[in-house]
Amino acid sequence: MDEQPSSKTWGKPIKCRAAVSRQPGEPLVIEEITVAPPMAREVRIRIVCTSLCHSDVTFWKMKDYPAIFPRIFGHEAMGIVESVGEGVDEVTEGDSVIPFFMSDCGECIDCRSKKSNLCSNLPFKVSPYMHRHETSRFTDLKGEVLYHFLFVSSFSEYTVVDIAHVTKIDPSIPPNRECLLSCGVSTGVGAAWRTANVETGSTVAIFGLGSIGLAVAEGARLCGATKIIGVDLNPDKFEIGKKFGVTEFVNAGECGNKTVSQVINEITGGGADYCFECVGLASLVQEAYACCRKGWGKTIVVGVDKPGSKLSLSSFDVLHSGKTLMGSLFGGLKAKTDIPILLKRYLDKELQLDEFITHEVKFDDINKAFDLLIQGKSLRCVIWMDK
Amino acid sequence: MDEQPSSKTWGKPIKCRAAVSRQPGEPLVIEEITVAPPMAREVRIRIVCTSLCHSDVTFWKMKDYPAIFPRIFGHEAMGIVESVGEGVDEVTEGDSVIPFFMSDCGECIDCRSKKSNLCSNLPFKVSPYMHRHETSRFTDLKGEVLYHFLFVSSFSEYTVVDIAHVTKIDPSIPPNRECLLSCGVSTGVGAAWRTANVETGSTVAIFGLGSIGLAVAEGARLCGATKIIGVDLNPDKFEIGKKFGVTEFVNAGECGNKTVSQVINEITGGGADYCFECVGLASLVQEAYACCRKGWGKTIVVGVDKPGSKLSLSSFDVLHSGKTLMGSLFGGLKAKTDIPILLKRYLDKELQLDEFITHEVKFDDINKAFDLLIQGKSLRCVIWMDK
Repeated sequence: MDEQPSSKTWGKPIKCRAAVSRQPGEPLVIEEITVAPPMAREVRIRIVCTSLCHSDVTFWKMKDYPAIFPRIFGHEAMGIVESVGEGVDEVTEGDSVIPFFMSDCGECIDCRSKKSNLCSNLPFKVSPYMHRHETSRFTDLKGEVLYHFLFVSSFSEYTVVDIAHVTKIDPSIPPNRECLLSCGVSTGVGAAWRTANVETGSTVAIFGLGSIGLAVAEGARLCGATKIIGVDLNPDKFEIGKKFGVTEFVNAGECGNKTVSQVINEITGGGADYCFECVGLASLVQEAYACCRKGWGKTIVVGVDKPGSKLSLSSFDVLHSGKTLMGSLFGGLKAKTDIPILLKRYLDKELQLDEFITHEVKFDDINKAFDLLIQGKSLRCVIWMDK
Repeated sequence: MDEQPSSKTWGKPIKCRAAVSRQPGEPLVIEEITVAPPMAREVRIRIVCTSLCHSDVTFWKMKDYPAIFPRIFGHEAMGIVESVGEGVDEVTEGDSVIPFFMSDCGECIDCRSKKSNLCSNLPFKVSPYMHRHETSRFTDLKGEVLYHFLFVSSFSEYTVVDIAHVTKIDPSIPPNRECLLSCGVSTGVGAAWRTANVETGSTVAIFGLGSIGLAVAEGARLCGATKIIGVDLNPDKFEIGKKFGVTEFVNAGECGNKTVSQVINEITGGGADYCFECVGLASLVQEAYACCRKGWGKTIVVGVDKPGSKLSLSSFDVLHSGKTLMGSLFGGLKAKTDIPILLKRYLDKELQLDEFITHEVKFDDINKAFDLLIQGKSLRCVIWMDK
């Protein structure tokens, strides 16, 4: 399928293989599907490789709204442009691209501002459709609609993505490195770099050393943080964390009669300059807030909590502590500007990407990637479409 | 008493008049008291004028801890140095000074950092004593200890203040203007200027148009904000607010079936760049957070909520909104650096101070100042010690 020259497929539906999720929590099924041509301001991409992120698993397990099935998951990927819709001149056939879930339209007040990465033309939402046209480009052999996920749906040999969700990249970098910057690693590195703007010589505490937390450590290391404290329940994470700059480890399950925040306040002599919550628990955000440095400490929420969850802070602390609370969606990155910068830093041997790849599988084995992530055995498992 | 040359009193106790609060909520009683000489790193000051701030009233009404009686309230003032204790060379006899409740020791990591105004040598607390020596300098005629308030206790002809709580000022400015910068006006102006760092051309919403809220408006006006929305239940506040740059008024009691945040989101087309909560209610902080601009909006907590109050935010909003929550104690000002800057801006006719003074009374009439503030009739009532 992917040998087909695009001149033959331009403007036509493409039949290809996709890993379809038909039931919550059930293994994906590789099926033949039809991918419609891109509509105006859309791009059809041949996926080269994709990797599995926790958000895929979260929505794959989810039974109720905003979960919807049958759906094509996947939102970390690298691919080659097969064809473009009307009004697209930013990329063309044959370009190497990274799709991403946060739009970057380049036109709205947010995209034009240095201060925001929350596009207001095409605001973030968990939609089953294309962002601009509100329809699906996927159908199965019976003609039934298959739903999109996070405007990417990369668990398919071909996908269609809005031009606001695509950036052109240097084709000289290995695809499995490039695809990591599509979501997880960018989110973590960006949280330290863009959202928190970690200063040289500062102290950082990271709650949760999954891929995102490790990417925060990597970002903090790149920014010159000198003390990077990793917090996790799994002691194996410390050795892994060291690769990404973690200098000290707090085992949250072995703090005795102290809270994690008390331990970190002791280690840092009064709190870390920056605390990142990468698990997605309001109670941990409170712990992070409790051990960020009075006067100037920043607590950055990176983890995705369950819907409806409430974060409770003492009004006295908020007023009297001089601390700042902020969220970081996609690391505060502007995808089209910042992903190429990060790739350049990888080429310059500053940013570490290789170490995030713990596993690689063929497309046919995509369900193994789910098993590995759920069992906590992988950081990033790359799924190759053509192998 | 205040004609006495300090050479005669240096190192000796001074007998003078003070307005003593003996019972919560009861009128202050003008009594003769004894003010001990300053201990090491302390300064004895002859108060020229003082003004009444809401925190005085809050603690005067309070029946339980940290309230304590008999106490000498007052923490907004201007005075002249009568004598200094050992180790004080920053000010000397005859200097015009402003005392303030937030210490600025100039030596600790916080005072040396540009990012913090929360001195760690002498951290903020509500203590009944001098900050460094943990004893009182006041006794009544029976020899009973009178307690200090916020390290200032300016409702006395003489008081003793730690050198970390005093800044020398230009004596050419009228005392009743100077004393305003001791707490309230500085807190509000600083919240806009130092904590939020309001940008030129931005939009600002202020919840509560008391003196602090109006001072926030004044600070935002000085920073070049173009839209300053005042929120209050009292429609008279709009006319007053106009003097300080308020451009639009939202009557919180007349929003129909909309919330205040919905109204402000409509007025601003998606939220104000900066929202200041100046009332001290967690529910209003939540409203402020709900109408600050996604992507870059900052919510700044200025009002003092009741002890134990909890602020609840949606975890989803914190992560996905790109908004920042921060507190502002004493407007984020470093008192010894920033109060002189603000006085200079008053001299340069940039900062408005005159308009805050709605009433002036003699020391004997200090209880009138309480009545006026409680009845919402005054912004600042200046109390003159020698009239």
